[in-house]
Amino acid sequence: MGGSTFGNIFTVTTWGESHGPALGAVVDGCPAGLPLSADDIQRYLDRRKPGQSRFATARREEDKVEILSGVFEGMTTGTPVSLLIRNKDQRSRDYGDIAYTYRPGHADFCYDSKYGFRDYRGGGRSSARETAARVAAGAIAARLLSETGISLRTYVHSIGPVACKSFDPEEITRNPLCMPDSSAAAEAEQYLDQCIKNQDSAGGVIECRISGVPAGLGSPVFGKLDAVLSSAVMSIGAVKAVEIGDGILAAGCTGSESNDGFCVSDSGKITKASNHAGGILGGISDGSEIIIRAHIKPTPSISQPQNTVTKDAEPVTIEIHGRHDPVVVPRAVVVVESMAALTLADALLANMTSRLDSIKKFYR
Amino acid sequence: MGGSTFGNIFTVTTWGESHGPALGAVVDGCPAGLPLSADDIQRYLDRRKPGQSRFATARREEDKVEILSGVFEGMTTGTPVSLLIRNKDQRSRDYGDIAYTYRPGHADFCYDSKYGFRDYRGGGRSSARETAARVAAGAIAARLLSETGISLRTYVHSIGPVACKSFDPEEITRNPLCMPDSSAAAEAEQYLDQCIKNQDSAGGVIECRISGVPAGLGSPVFGKLDAVLSSAVMSIGAVKAVEIGDGILAAGCTGSESNDGFCVSDSGKITKASNHAGGILGGISDGSEIIIRAHIKPTPSISQPQNTVTKDAEPVTIEIHGRHDPVVVPRAVVVVESMAALTLADALLANMTSRLDSIKKFYR
Amino acid sequence: MGGSTFGNIFTVTTWGESHGPALGAVVDGCPAGLPLSADDIQRYLDRRKPGQSRFATARREEDKVEILSGVFEGMTTGTPVSLLIRNKDQRSRDYGDIAYTYRPGHADFCYDSKYGFRDYRGGGRSSARETAARVAAGAIAARLLSETGISLRTYVHSIGPVACKSFDPEEITRNPLCMPDSSAAAEAEQYLDQCIKNQDSAGGVIECRISGVPAGLGSPVFGKLDAVLSSAVMSIGAVKAVEIGDGILAAGCTGSESNDGFCVSDSGKITKASNHAGGILGGISDGSEIIIRAHIKPTPSISQPQNTVTKDAEPVTIEIHGRHDPVVVPRAVVVVESMAALTLADALLANMTSRLDSIKKFYR
Amino acid sequence: MGGSTFGNIFTVTTWGESHGPALGAVVDGCPAGLPLSADDIQRYLDRRKPGQSRFATARREEDKVEILSGVFEGMTTGTPVSLLIRNKDQRSRDYGDIAYTYRPGHADFCYDSKYGFRDYRGGGRSSARETAARVAAGAIAARLLSETGISLRTYVHSIGPVACKSFDPEEITRNPLCMPDSSAAAEAEQYLDQCIKNQDSAGGVIECRISGVPAGLGSPVFGKLDAVLSSAVMSIGAVKAVEIGDGILAAGCTGSESNDGFCVSDSGKITKASNHAGGILGGISDGSEIIIRAHIKPTPSISQPQNTVTKDAEPVTIEIHGRHDPVVVPRAVVVVESMAALTLADALLANMTSRLDSIKKFYR
Repeated sequence: MGGSTFGNIFTVTTWGESHGPALGAVVDGCPAGLPLSADDIQRYLDRRKPGQSRFATARREEDKVEILSGVFEGMTTGTPVSLLIRNKDQRSRDYGDIAYTYRPGHADFCYDSKYGFRDYRGGGRSSARETAARVAAGAIAARLLSETGISLRTYVHSIGPVACKSFDPEEITRNPLCMPDSSAAAEAEQYLDQCIKNQDSAGGVIECRISGVPAGLGSPVFGKLDAVLSSAVMSIGAVKAVEIGDGILAAGCTGSESNDGFCVSDSGKITKASNHAGGILGGISDGSEIIIRAHIKPTPSISQPQNTVTKDAEPVTIEIHGRHDPVVVPRAVVVVESMAALTLADALLANMTSRLDSIKKFYR
Repeated sequence: MGGSTFGNIFTVTTWGESHGPALGAVVDGCPAGLPLSADDIQRYLDRRKPGQSRFATARREEDKVEILSGVFEGMTTGTPVSLLIRNKDQRSRDYGDIAYTYRPGHADFCYDSKYGFRDYRGGGRSSARETAARVAAGAIAARLLSETGISLRTYVHSIGPVACKSFDPEEITRNPLCMPDSSAAAEAEQYLDQCIKNQDSAGGVIECRISGVPAGLGSPVFGKLDAVLSSAVMSIGAVKAVEIGDGILAAGCTGSESNDGFCVSDSGKITKASNHAGGILGGISDGSEIIIRAHIKPTPSISQPQNTVTKDAEPVTIEIHGRHDPVVVPRAVVVVESMAALTLADALLANMTSRLDSIKKFYR
Repeated sequence: MGGSTFGNIFTVTTWGESHGPALGAVVDGCPAGLPLSADDIQRYLDRRKPGQSRFATARREEDKVEILSGVFEGMTTGTPVSLLIRNKDQRSRDYGDIAYTYRPGHADFCYDSKYGFRDYRGGGRSSARETAARVAAGAIAARLLSETGISLRTYVHSIGPVACKSFDPEEITRNPLCMPDSSAAAEAEQYLDQCIKNQDSAGGVIECRISGVPAGLGSPVFGKLDAVLSSAVMSIGAVKAVEIGDGILAAGCTGSESNDGFCVSDSGKITKASNHAGGILGGISDGSEIIIRAHIKPTPSISQPQNTVTKDAEPVTIEIHGRHDPVVVPRAVVVVESMAALTLADALLANMTSRLDSIKKFYR
Repeated sequence: MGGSTFGNIFTVTTWGESHGPALGAVVDGCPAGLPLSADDIQRYLDRRKPGQSRFATARREEDKVEILSGVFEGMTTGTPVSLLIRNKDQRSRDYGDIAYTYRPGHADFCYDSKYGFRDYRGGGRSSARETAARVAAGAIAARLLSETGISLRTYVHSIGPVACKSFDPEEITRNPLCMPDSSAAAEAEQYLDQCIKNQDSAGGVIECRISGVPAGLGSPVFGKLDAVLSSAVMSIGAVKAVEIGDGILAAGCTGSESNDGFCVSDSGKITKASNHAGGILGGISDGSEIIIRAHIKPTPSISQPQNTVTKDAEPVTIEIHGRHDPVVVPRAVVVVESMAALTLADALLANMTSRLDSIKKFYR
């Protein structure tokens, strides 16, 4: 209920504040026998590490992960995997003035309203730094999914008004904006340089495609796979909209345009002739690629003057200096992927108990 | 895990199939002392009742609700409220041919993949008829919210390509499409008539505004209020995208455009000068109006011929006749409102344990 | 949180009051493909039906169950199974005087303290009648368990001071007290007749043995199989103690007496040479018979005069007349069995996701 | 589902193995504003610290706790409190031979059956060392309870066959066995010395009394306070039976003996004239002292030769040397208290949403 646990079978509980001693996650319900090392997790964490381009915060965090439990002789044991990431570069002086002022677009006022006070250092629990713990856990989920042939590919679809027009998967890791279209990336860099010059910030759209998903994952009614995915992705700080498949376009077209007819693949399997649905029908995976898009608002911390109020309702002008990302979208790519992986891992396990025949086979 | 329960404190479990004997919901965790009658619930159910316009299915269902438990002398007792709605007009012959064929845009194939077989009569559990139970439960949640001054207003923002351009709340109940703009409604009716003529169907967008929400509802990280709302709304069968506040527009603008400065209201309360955020910051309500939009795909059941396959992977052409809604959007208005109400009711209760001072006051 | 849901994967939500229109249960997460008819459930319900001996209430309830959802063509579909039992013989006049008086040994005062008022008719939700819904759900769980070779045998071990000294399984259904020892049963009947004569009531002990349980069910730490079983059994109204295996005797003996050495069975399987542990070690089933004992207090409704107070703290003397069981123990046998079955069914499903190799095999 | 999380609102997730780098707990849902320091927790941990008497393992663990999150300026912030305890004195060589052998009375075989392999070093996750994390979390729960006037007193009622006959609360901390009766303690020490001489071990009974509990905590049906307490206490490794109030004695007496009449206290409050029920009726606290007893089996690790088998089903004789407690009961006192505190803290918060009038007052 505290809100820091996600999942039903494969669960993750995260903890930690931006400027506390450490952040971490406890993954429970991970099946035994999964090969897992700190390196597997570190690779994921490195994808969101700050300071890797001029478009990201200059805060220096190694984000070195330590596995404290649940792994023995290189394999998960089935018991909780505890992950620890020490904070290294927390400079509390950067944030001193925000103790009494409500930053626009931030959760300061909401936390004070709810809890009566807040850890104001760097946004405390509401800092985007919290996502490091999700990514550490997501790496384990992705590792599990890969064992059954499920893979995720996530990239930036647009930065501000600049959207990709072509798709080259190789390109994603070649530009600092994780865009699969090099000319869109170049244009987006220009746009971001202008934002920085204007002491402003930008948002964007992240797309995640999940392939190899067997048909049947997800539950009817409230446990629909797309419902859980939405929750997973919307739970990332700055996300303001989530789409599945054709998403918002679906609402404007007709049934004959939107429906995906079923057909038979060359290998004789039932599949779909198109994928407007984005791989989920009635909340259950249909075997096609799952497609999610997350719309991310611009970083609220900007250095141009903004009108706001203090805790005591005094009007003030605030200029937020410090080490902020002019755009979080590229660093959020692996966060979206992690949340999608956590969702799928949980659904993968949940689906195993759907049919009596499987149960009888398992216990035979 | 079966997926038919929603909520943590104020919970609802629904059950029932389109053509089974009945549908229903069990609401547990509803506080004692809430005045409640079958009429309170019936009013909500009547808003989604079929057969009220030429744009809705001709299926005749009274959707008469019976309260079987949890209410005594006109008030909730704190124990589970069980709600029963008998199915009356289930004509199974309408659906005979779909037993062996996978309808495009429907969950038939997914249910078969997951469960090995399915109740094919009218879509079984995956039918939109399932939402009747949600609405019955949502009526109780809305009743509870109203006791603390929270109210919901929900309407159709667009049908297919026709969007509202003005907002007259009175208009919402005056036209069969629940649109707050009479000329948009007239235009949308023409669009729908054309859809019907083309043996096709339409989608649309529903907007829900929740006012009177105190600041502080929602939890950090995975329990964010917008995350839960997304899940709640995306769990409605045909929803393909969810937006909060500025939603997809947020991704395209800059921080200075997107941030809402705090200010002081005439009554001296801290409030926001604008509401791009849609009433939620960092996953916690900020006291402004909460704004959600649900994008709904066109009804997949259309009578024009469609290519698909049978269970045995035989290609076939299907024409879906029967009593289908050419557009479900107007009837889904109260479903979206119900899911929003269930989410808020749960968050309202969860928030009461956030602070030690409240706990001490309660137990003094 | 309302407290009326049990289980994580195979879940049951019950509802209903003693003198309301009906009682029921919703079972979610039951695997698809389980053959199930109303008769399967009725057989279980008939075992707790009132009016079957002079030691049970004279209230006439057929406890006829209706399956409202989740079963199609004689098999579960994987979606919620809703069960309905109409109350028939609720005579509210029997209970008029308890509206203002707190009956000793009953929950009247506690419900008023918690909820501010209560449905006083027959104890409302706190009535033992509530267990009918558990039994209906338990019948489904037992049906599922039987498919994997797990069976439950439950009987009365003692009534008041009279304990069984021998064990004849055939005898259990031959005497109205469900005791496996005919001479103990005869002695217990005499004891009960004396209780009735004294306007008093009796308690007793129920023992449940579960055989065919594979090793590996249950989770470490809080999800231990014995922890969940304890909760399940202690949640039955009148239970005041729960034992697993040697139970209270274990505390008094030494490690060398209490330990069960492992050995190899004739068929070459690892098993235990003794079963002091009662089939569970470290919270996980060890393949031996699981043994639980539930200690049940005497029926609190007795007709001899008792001192107590009214709602307004006025001292009064109360004599509880009406149709009460002088002993509930025999009728509670199937309730204990049901709770054990529900626990095991849930653990059976949960265990399927424990190992990567099973997951890979499932999704191959 | 992994089993390492307890509670619904005030939740704790524990992790860690006996011989891994560390153990810990994440407490989520703790209300903001609770004064909390590492010392508050350390005091609890010191009560279960090994090496404090000749009846406890010689393993040297300081069990120094570090608070990694959720506390700011000496108060909880409402976000997860992460607690870390590093293992110091793990000598893996002590346990080398148990890698292939199933120790009688231990979970080795069960873990292998469930997970395919296990962390055999010191019992891994199934080690009693796991309870350190529970105690760290329990200290926070107890701190919260104390703010509303709820206090817990826990002690050893018996060791092997030696039970207390008198009750002197001062005595509890004066003898190494935590018994409130000095002569029973002396006798028990003799009994234990004999056990040690016999290379054997002892069990015992722990009693926990909770006072200051307001009437109304706990939920009907499955969420009964005694059901949750049973689960909490039975989840401690060696517990084999749980009693509430009169417990097993209740089953043998009559209704007139077992019922507690209500009366009016000197201060005019409704109370009970006796407390056979142990403070809980119908699963809800009645305002009287809550009384729980946990029956603990003898330590299974004994050095006398025992017959058992290896992983490969080879019969062997095992002598378990190493640093084992001849009796865990005194060290388990604070574990039982911690589990009771965690249960009560959760119930305390859950109860706040039971009534509409409180909700209206809170949000006024």
